[in-house]
Amino acid sequence: MEKGRLEAFSDGVIAIIITIMVLELKVPHGDTFATLRDHDHDLWPKFLSYILSFVYVGIYWNNHHHLIKAADRINGGILWANLHLLFWLSLIPFGAGWTGETGFAPAPTALYGVVLLMAAIAYWILQKAIIAEHGKDSLLARALGRDLKGKISPFFYVLAIATAMKYPLFANSLYVLVALIWLIPDQRIEKVLKEDDRKH
Amino acid sequence: MEKGRLEAFSDGVIAIIITIMVLELKVPHGDTFATLRDHDHDLWPKFLSYILSFVYVGIYWNNHHHLIKAADRINGGILWANLHLLFWLSLIPFGAGWTGETGFAPAPTALYGVVLLMAAIAYWILQKAIIAEHGKDSLLARALGRDLKGKISPFFYVLAIATAMKYPLFANSLYVLVALIWLIPDQRIEKVLKEDDRKH
Amino acid sequence: MEKGRLEAFSDGVIAIIITIMVLELKVPHGDTFATLRDHDHDLWPKFLSYILSFVYVGIYWNNHHHLIKAADRINGGILWANLHLLFWLSLIPFGAGWTGETGFAPAPTALYGVVLLMAAIAYWILQKAIIAEHGKDSLLARALGRDLKGKISPFFYVLAIATAMKYPLFANSLYVLVALIWLIPDQRIEKVLKEDDRKH
Amino acid sequence: MEKGRLEAFSDGVIAIIITIMVLELKVPHGDTFATLRDHDHDLWPKFLSYILSFVYVGIYWNNHHHLIKAADRINGGILWANLHLLFWLSLIPFGAGWTGETGFAPAPTALYGVVLLMAAIAYWILQKAIIAEHGKDSLLARALGRDLKGKISPFFYVLAIATAMKYPLFANSLYVLVALIWLIPDQRIEKVLKEDDRKH
Repeated sequence: MEKGRLEAFSDGVIAIIITIMVLELKVPHGDTFATLRDHDHDLWPKFLSYILSFVYVGIYWNNHHHLIKAADRINGGILWANLHLLFWLSLIPFGAGWTGETGFAPAPTALYGVVLLMAAIAYWILQKAIIAEHGKDSLLARALGRDLKGKISPFFYVLAIATAMKYPLFANSLYVLVALIWLIPDQRIEKVLKEDDRKH
Repeated sequence: MEKGRLEAFSDGVIAIIITIMVLELKVPHGDTFATLRDHDHDLWPKFLSYILSFVYVGIYWNNHHHLIKAADRINGGILWANLHLLFWLSLIPFGAGWTGETGFAPAPTALYGVVLLMAAIAYWILQKAIIAEHGKDSLLARALGRDLKGKISPFFYVLAIATAMKYPLFANSLYVLVALIWLIPDQRIEKVLKEDDRKH
Repeated sequence: MEKGRLEAFSDGVIAIIITIMVLELKVPHGDTFATLRDHDHDLWPKFLSYILSFVYVGIYWNNHHHLIKAADRINGGILWANLHLLFWLSLIPFGAGWTGETGFAPAPTALYGVVLLMAAIAYWILQKAIIAEHGKDSLLARALGRDLKGKISPFFYVLAIATAMKYPLFANSLYVLVALIWLIPDQRIEKVLKEDDRKH
Repeated sequence: MEKGRLEAFSDGVIAIIITIMVLELKVPHGDTFATLRDHDHDLWPKFLSYILSFVYVGIYWNNHHHLIKAADRINGGILWANLHLLFWLSLIPFGAGWTGETGFAPAPTALYGVVLLMAAIAYWILQKAIIAEHGKDSLLARALGRDLKGKISPFFYVLAIATAMKYPLFANSLYVLVALIWLIPDQRIEKVLKEDDRKH
């Protein structure tokens, strides 16, 4: 029950985040394709930025989905760790809007990386809070055990932030790379759950 | 469970898409009916475009609803095929805003067709992903078997895109026509499900 | 199941409608209370219009809730009658924004009445579609039988539309009056349901 | 069932409220970090105001969650008390936007306090409506019995409103203080529920 409402609320917030980003794609005032590429209104970077951020929010929804599914119990700490994650995810539309509007300029690229890094840290805290509730030897703890992707992503974000001011294109490529790594569905949890089924 | 959350998230995103379109109907600054038809703010095309897009999103919600209801299992590929569909649906408000603001001008009409075409392709991919999970001989595969509407819609979209630059009115009529075809509820799935019930 | 998703989707759309109206209450650029009452930005009529529309959307949510609860089965016609109702409800923020921005001027007041009238008609169609599915002698049909409020509301809306251009204040008072009538919770359905329980 | 839909609708509205606040963080037009701190567009107070309001809405979601979980029955009065609470919560983005835009100026700070005070009163009314439905001697009534936090919060809000025009910084500190008090999860209800379990 408690878990159901945590999922419902998170789904609601994530659904809104993923959808309001499209509001940054403002309708141009002219009626030709050329107006889509006006000096002040080039739609391509905005569109690319929208795709990238849509994929990131989709990845978080997907992983959040699997993480909460594996949890049996929810406590107050988990509720707040979850809200903390939603807070940083809610800043992705702002980051995406700024990188898109400026054509992936240095400062916006660095800021976007900070938002992604903070979201990754918040996700890690949420994982820890859930493991703490279930015990270090629990099925869940083992399922999340190695978490290679979760460990290398922050490294890429930090690298991107450090290089964004000089090499924004390289930094943005790193964001694309991390997204591609995550697009391979995270089957760790499901695999261990299935193994556990087999033993019983 | 897994299916429930996929539905809840999709419902959330589709509900937001269908509702934020109304934000394009900006409140006029005057207080007479004439200001609703100002040169820069003619509300009629915007309103017609809102109706058309509301109906399209409604059709997708309706069909999505039936499709997921028929599915028994969800996998990672289906989750992403679903997000891919939501991505293209999320661009309908942008397309609708541009056709509405320009009074169904050629370029916006063509772009709107591209969005509808991509959404149709994404829906087809989602169908394929669900059939692949359930097997080619499954009840679901048979239920979706012919899918006449799904097969002719892209043809109309392509025709509309090809003619939009010269005959935007004709292209927009095709969009209305496709919407009318789909408004007839898709009873394929329900019919086969009922037949199956009868056999058992 | 089917009913559950209809409720969830409707709840989502109504929740968004009731909340995006607040976006019309634009933050003033000054930092004193006086700026809240600037010539071009008088917040009072906007706030009153927000309250009135919040109450109307709340009433519809409340009644929709009871209506769907009483239904046993959903069909394609009901799904579309429901979307039709949501369409007109989605125009309430536009109507509220215009009456609020213009201080309840004649034309906006008339338009607001048209939106309310169309929503009332759409609700009536939805009721008819549900009764048609359940049969004229069903518990539901009896429960909705008299529907005094539903019958007198359109009369008030028509009166308000007819008088709005000359007496906008009177017309707006009628909208307040109808809202007050509906605020008395609709206990018809619940009462008959309870009587039915007692008989069994 | 009835309770489920009340939760779902409240979750939807609260999810939207917490997310649309981020729309106040408008993307700057320049592409340097300096533009984030432009005279007319200093992002820091907006960001701080966003954090504070995110936490407040999160607290209300959290408490609302526990309150409704403890309730067994819902009636019309509770539905409307709930909508009344959602109404005041929906004004938090407006209050947050104004304090953020003006750097926590006196008048916006006072208005923000009024919104928080009204939300607290609305929450208290909702509690009373739920207790009235369940009886004064019910488990729920005992669980909510002392409600120290709920009783001291309005006192702080009133103090903040009274001092906001002269000492806006002090008033805003009080809002932060109340948020910190509430961040300690409200375990009253859960504790009594557990004690009750132990007795049986």
